[in-house]
Amino acid sequence: MTAVAPARARLDALFAPRGIAVVGASRDPAKLGAAMARSLRGFPGRVALVNPRDPAMFDSVAAATSVATATSAATVAGEGPIDLAVLCLPAPACAGALAELAPAGVGAAVVCAGGFAEIGPAGAAHQDALASVAAEAGIALLGPNTSGFFVPHHGLCASFVPGAADVPAGRVAVVAASGGVNHALAFLLAEAGHGVSLGVGLGNAAGLTAPPVLDHLAEDPRTHAVALHVESVADGPALLASVSRLAARKPVVALVAGRHTGTAEQLAEFARSHTGALATSWRTTVAALRQAGAVCVASERELVDAVGALSLVRLPAGRPGVGVLTAQAGPGLLLLDELHGRDVVVPALTGETRSAIGELLPPLTFQGNPVDTGRPGPSFGPVLRALSRDPGVGLVAGYALAEPDAFDLVDAVTAAGAEVPVVLGVGGLGPAAAAIRSALITQGIPAAPDPAGVAAAVSALLADAMAPRAGALSTPRRCSQHTESRFPGAPRDGEARDRSREIRDRGREIRDMGCGDQRYDLVEPATFAGGGRDMGWGDARHGNWVGGGPWDEDVAKGVLGGLGVRTPGRRVCDGRESAQRALAELGGAVAVKVLDASVRHKTEVGGVRLGVRTPGELDDALRAIGAPRVLVEAMAPAGVDLLVGARRDPVFGPVLLVGLGGTQAEALADVAVRVAPVGPEEAAGMVGELAGRRLLEGWRGGPVLDRDELGRVVAALGELLMENPGLDEIEVNPLRLTEHGLVALDAVLRSRDDHADR
Amino acid sequence: MTAVAPARARLDALFAPRGIAVVGASRDPAKLGAAMARSLRGFPGRVALVNPRDPAMFDSVAAATSVATATSAATVAGEGPIDLAVLCLPAPACAGALAELAPAGVGAAVVCAGGFAEIGPAGAAHQDALASVAAEAGIALLGPNTSGFFVPHHGLCASFVPGAADVPAGRVAVVAASGGVNHALAFLLAEAGHGVSLGVGLGNAAGLTAPPVLDHLAEDPRTHAVALHVESVADGPALLASVSRLAARKPVVALVAGRHTGTAEQLAEFARSHTGALATSWRTTVAALRQAGAVCVASERELVDAVGALSLVRLPAGRPGVGVLTAQAGPGLLLLDELHGRDVVVPALTGETRSAIGELLPPLTFQGNPVDTGRPGPSFGPVLRALSRDPGVGLVAGYALAEPDAFDLVDAVTAAGAEVPVVLGVGGLGPAAAAIRSALITQGIPAAPDPAGVAAAVSALLADAMAPRAGALSTPRRCSQHTESRFPGAPRDGEARDRSREIRDRGREIRDMGCGDQRYDLVEPATFAGGGRDMGWGDARHGNWVGGGPWDEDVAKGVLGGLGVRTPGRRVCDGRESAQRALAELGGAVAVKVLDASVRHKTEVGGVRLGVRTPGELDDALRAIGAPRVLVEAMAPAGVDLLVGARRDPVFGPVLLVGLGGTQAEALADVAVRVAPVGPEEAAGMVGELAGRRLLEGWRGGPVLDRDELGRVVAALGELLMENPGLDEIEVNPLRLTEHGLVALDAVLRSRDDHADR
Repeated sequence: MTAVAPARARLDALFAPRGIAVVGASRDPAKLGAAMARSLRGFPGRVALVNPRDPAMFDSVAAATSVATATSAATVAGEGPIDLAVLCLPAPACAGALAELAPAGVGAAVVCAGGFAEIGPAGAAHQDALASVAAEAGIALLGPNTSGFFVPHHGLCASFVPGAADVPAGRVAVVAASGGVNHALAFLLAEAGHGVSLGVGLGNAAGLTAPPVLDHLAEDPRTHAVALHVESVADGPALLASVSRLAARKPVVALVAGRHTGTAEQLAEFARSHTGALATSWRTTVAALRQAGAVCVASERELVDAVGALSLVRLPAGRPGVGVLTAQAGPGLLLLDELHGRDVVVPALTGETRSAIGELLPPLTFQGNPVDTGRPGPSFGPVLRALSRDPGVGLVAGYALAEPDAFDLVDAVTAAGAEVPVVLGVGGLGPAAAAIRSALITQGIPAAPDPAGVAAAVSALLADAMAPRAGALSTPRRCSQHTESRFPGAPRDGEARDRSREIRDRGREIRDMGCGDQRYDLVEPATFAGGGRDMGWGDARHGNWVGGGPWDEDVAKGVLGGLGVRTPGRRVCDGRESAQRALAELGGAVAVKVLDASVRHKTEVGGVRLGVRTPGELDDALRAIGAPRVLVEAMAPAGVDLLVGARRDPVFGPVLLVGLGGTQAEALADVAVRVAPVGPEEAAGMVGELAGRRLLEGWRGGPVLDRDELGRVVAALGELLMENPGLDEIEVNPLRLTEHGLVALDAVLRSRDDHADR
Repeated sequence: MTAVAPARARLDALFAPRGIAVVGASRDPAKLGAAMARSLRGFPGRVALVNPRDPAMFDSVAAATSVATATSAATVAGEGPIDLAVLCLPAPACAGALAELAPAGVGAAVVCAGGFAEIGPAGAAHQDALASVAAEAGIALLGPNTSGFFVPHHGLCASFVPGAADVPAGRVAVVAASGGVNHALAFLLAEAGHGVSLGVGLGNAAGLTAPPVLDHLAEDPRTHAVALHVESVADGPALLASVSRLAARKPVVALVAGRHTGTAEQLAEFARSHTGALATSWRTTVAALRQAGAVCVASERELVDAVGALSLVRLPAGRPGVGVLTAQAGPGLLLLDELHGRDVVVPALTGETRSAIGELLPPLTFQGNPVDTGRPGPSFGPVLRALSRDPGVGLVAGYALAEPDAFDLVDAVTAAGAEVPVVLGVGGLGPAAAAIRSALITQGIPAAPDPAGVAAAVSALLADAMAPRAGALSTPRRCSQHTESRFPGAPRDGEARDRSREIRDRGREIRDMGCGDQRYDLVEPATFAGGGRDMGWGDARHGNWVGGGPWDEDVAKGVLGGLGVRTPGRRVCDGRESAQRALAELGGAVAVKVLDASVRHKTEVGGVRLGVRTPGELDDALRAIGAPRVLVEAMAPAGVDLLVGARRDPVFGPVLLVGLGGTQAEALADVAVRVAPVGPEEAAGMVGELAGRRLLEGWRGGPVLDRDELGRVVAALGELLMENPGLDEIEVNPLRLTEHGLVALDAVLRSRDDHADR
């Protein structure tokens, strides 16, 4: 469900209310209405306790029988209006109570109760009623099924969780899908020495969803970084747009639940019962959030390290090297190792830096990078400064055991005059060490209790610095709504066969890795070689629709040709005669494949014969395949197989996929994902995420990938899907990296209907 | 350097001394001699401060000019002898001071100073002198270059690090390669609510190494679990023997530094400067420690969660399912997801359990596994009990936000009468939540502040329960020292050629995936089919040595045949005539390969032709290869390629390797490692560690691996290396999984000399 974006004023009514009414306030300490009243005691404005049956229950606080009377009383008393109502009522009573709020001038409401959509159809009806009332009345509705929110800077705690009112004010905002996670994160942040500017759990999100809260935080001067917890996404483009806008101004760190979902059905079942939402994949959600500029982390622990550091420091865009400084070699080794595990660059220091450090430290310490200072003393600050001045160092990561009586670490670090930001690990016992970390944080220096925390913080600072900040997704394009598909270069009607005969024979002599010399026929797309950026989009993009699917391999390869992708020379053959002619024309070894759009897995039904060289072998192959139409195709050169494709995600729309091809890589699911559209440059970067990327970098004398070429192909697949709403999926598998560049060996197009049948 | 194992009495002198002398005690608070004196103030026995130039420096503590006078004074005063000397002297003075200790009856010494082997040759000389004196005098020497150790149960803190004296006494022992890591871990354990029984940093380990400390801890009644930090290993078999003995009695959790070393040269450089030691790989060290029964973790954070939990709970051997209980759905989802990511089994509950829980909870909560209780109330304990009684549940992992005023979580959990152990995450603010976690720990219930901590603890409990506890490595076999190699089944002298002619032609019709019908010749090892456990070891094991290497592929395959491994039918050919005869005999397509032991990478020098079918093609192939000897071999059936091998590790001796073969898997380094010898059963389990293991489980209709068969092959390779000291490495790559079982397509044997040439 797409929430109506509440106007900014309505979010102010929620997060910065002038007065608050607790509707359903109670004297029974076990009841929600009592817990909320307790939590709101610290609020400096009017808190009206509303209970029609008990108008005088709290002597010390204004009480009333209705929100309307409370509002009049507040106005009369010159205390300003009541902007926010906290509903402490059972699910069936909430919609009715909400309806009474708007006339009383209330702009926002929180519904904490459960018993709504998360329990099934009966609850869903209550939720629908609630959402309708909120939308009609223009009320910003938080919940239902949430433990609430808190804004420590305003002394405002509309949460029933003990301790929430004591969360210190600070620089980090928490926006969590779950009320429990909101609190858990806020508590962990407080333990780590950080304060919170806003903590909110969205619960069932019947009204307020994450995007408007993120938009609100972009404007909130007290929020310096945002922790975003995501369980499911209702409106992908809206979320990405908001994250993108926010990340352009402040760091966003996202924790997406469900990383390992695929392995267990009951997780999905549990998640559904908890929230009930559309399904996309964890991988796609993370990729999309990263594209929008968020830093994605693996656990709530890492989230605290990351967002805490980013609330204090944001590096300029780029990928700086990290200088590592340690007062104890062993923990320094652990830190260094964790940094390497996160692909952090720890550069060698210049000779100048080394000699500057050499003058400061006794010769028995290690003075490369890392720099081992030995127990921190007077030289610690000067060494830090010298390290920070190295031209390859854009950030310093340090570790020291606290020696509070012997050495003032905070003073040494703040007085050092480091020329780049510093993240420091401070080990030590109990409150003394915690106090040092807090003091560092107060001075704007991220501090963690252990090497792992330092590494997580450093990694987040770098990920943020490398993230797209201008917001590649700031104006996500929706798919075109016109129903006419426009496959670039696709042939009209019966032209497919004619077209395949026009293929230029450009076979060349290529050294084969294992099968003797072999001529390879490659179809160079007309504009490919001369193309540069253009890729032959001109005409191809406005090619003609080929009607609905299913489409066969020849059509798919024709489309690829139009996109500027090389394919092996091929002939569509409808009998022995044309097949034998094709073999003669193509020369060398050929592949013979059944050509039938209704056959999904050609190999698995015995519909493919490779390495056919002689007329006799071809006859054997045709007999074995036994299909009326076959594709006779030149064998491709050896190389490394990739898999690229584009498909429609139910939440994020067209998404792109690049992976290593072949059975092994598929079994390992080594793929990179992006939400379309992406430019060729961004698409080219996807390869960098593959675990097996070195296979594409001349592994054992093999070919080296031209990432720009791949980027153009992948970006073009995205455009294809964006332009053709009737097309559901295009998969090129394998797309082979050869000495001659990329060659598409197989391709499948699927229409929407086609897909639904599977 | 292998340390002489100190007798138990000498370790008692170190870790449970009756009196202590601080040699080089000082009044200058910045000096080591002052810090040590300060740290030792809490020691209940005699602490003599020895400084020849300042005999009366501390009024309140006994001072003396030498250890000898201190000892006499102590004896006269009836205080018992001085067992331990803490040397606070510069490196050049230490050996001399150590020499004076033994005559005074001192059994143990700590040397904290740096300036020894870690700084190069000059320091190494000091270290050698120190080690010699200690060995001759029979003194247990800790260090040099360490911050010391502490035994909180004895009020003993021989560490100069502030705070070390305040580490609480408890159940976890820390044995760290680095003094800094020892302290960092002890402080983190204390923060997490755990105490320490012994904390020791080994430093340069010139005398005392990890194995005798681990042996000591096996007998220490106050130690219930051991945290082991490893940087480098001097004596692999000794370490494994000690870990194995210890793990049989108490859980051992190991953190091995250098996981990502391979990616960065300077890490190795830094590590060398820090410790200077033999190089093995992180992967091998971890595999070896796991075999010995240790639980290996990825970070110091995870180590604290793991060893803390294991100091309270040890599960019976096996792999229990985990019941997940949560009071808040969102954190529960994070917990569940992290458990799944660690391959934890979260089983569906029985109908009986579900209905028991259904009677306790309102219908709107989720009652599968996980069980969502909603905010904890009176039903929390009974639900926990019901969950713990499910027959599939051997451990319960829970999470709740603390509500200290509303609900006594500790009481509820301890009174629940759970029938299996419980690990609990308790979120909440500050000291109140920490107090709940501490109280749980006091009750023997592991507690963590966040879902990630719970998952790490659960994962460690399960890893320990699944570890080999009887100690497969308790008596690691050293390689046989006899110089005569005994390759099973290896032919004598010129017999190779004759032997290859005896190959039985057992070609069968196999459906080929892509190349048409094809006959495959497979050499079934004589005893393989009938074999079961025997594998034809009988004669093969006592076969004849074939002289030193290098050995060619035919010899290697002969050896494999003797080990019971299938190979394709093959003929050794020394010219056109014999090659053509081989083609005719083998039938179908053949591979032609250069047969020359000096050629390492046959394919890369164009020495391999595959799919040769006709006499003409064979002539072409022979011409192209241009070698006097070739191997003509039947083409193998299609399948999935594995890589198996055995090689000598400089630290751990013969190690075994199983990985997925093929370029991709090699690029991804998806391999499992074991230290030899292992039984076939253990070797069979290696496949379970491969990321791409599902490729071997009938992926897309492919063959299914018989793990027992693979286990026999791998175990046999290990035996081969154990029995033949002249053999340095055997690699079978690829070992192909086919419909007919495993077939070795290529094999390489390397002698020690051969290897050194590379």
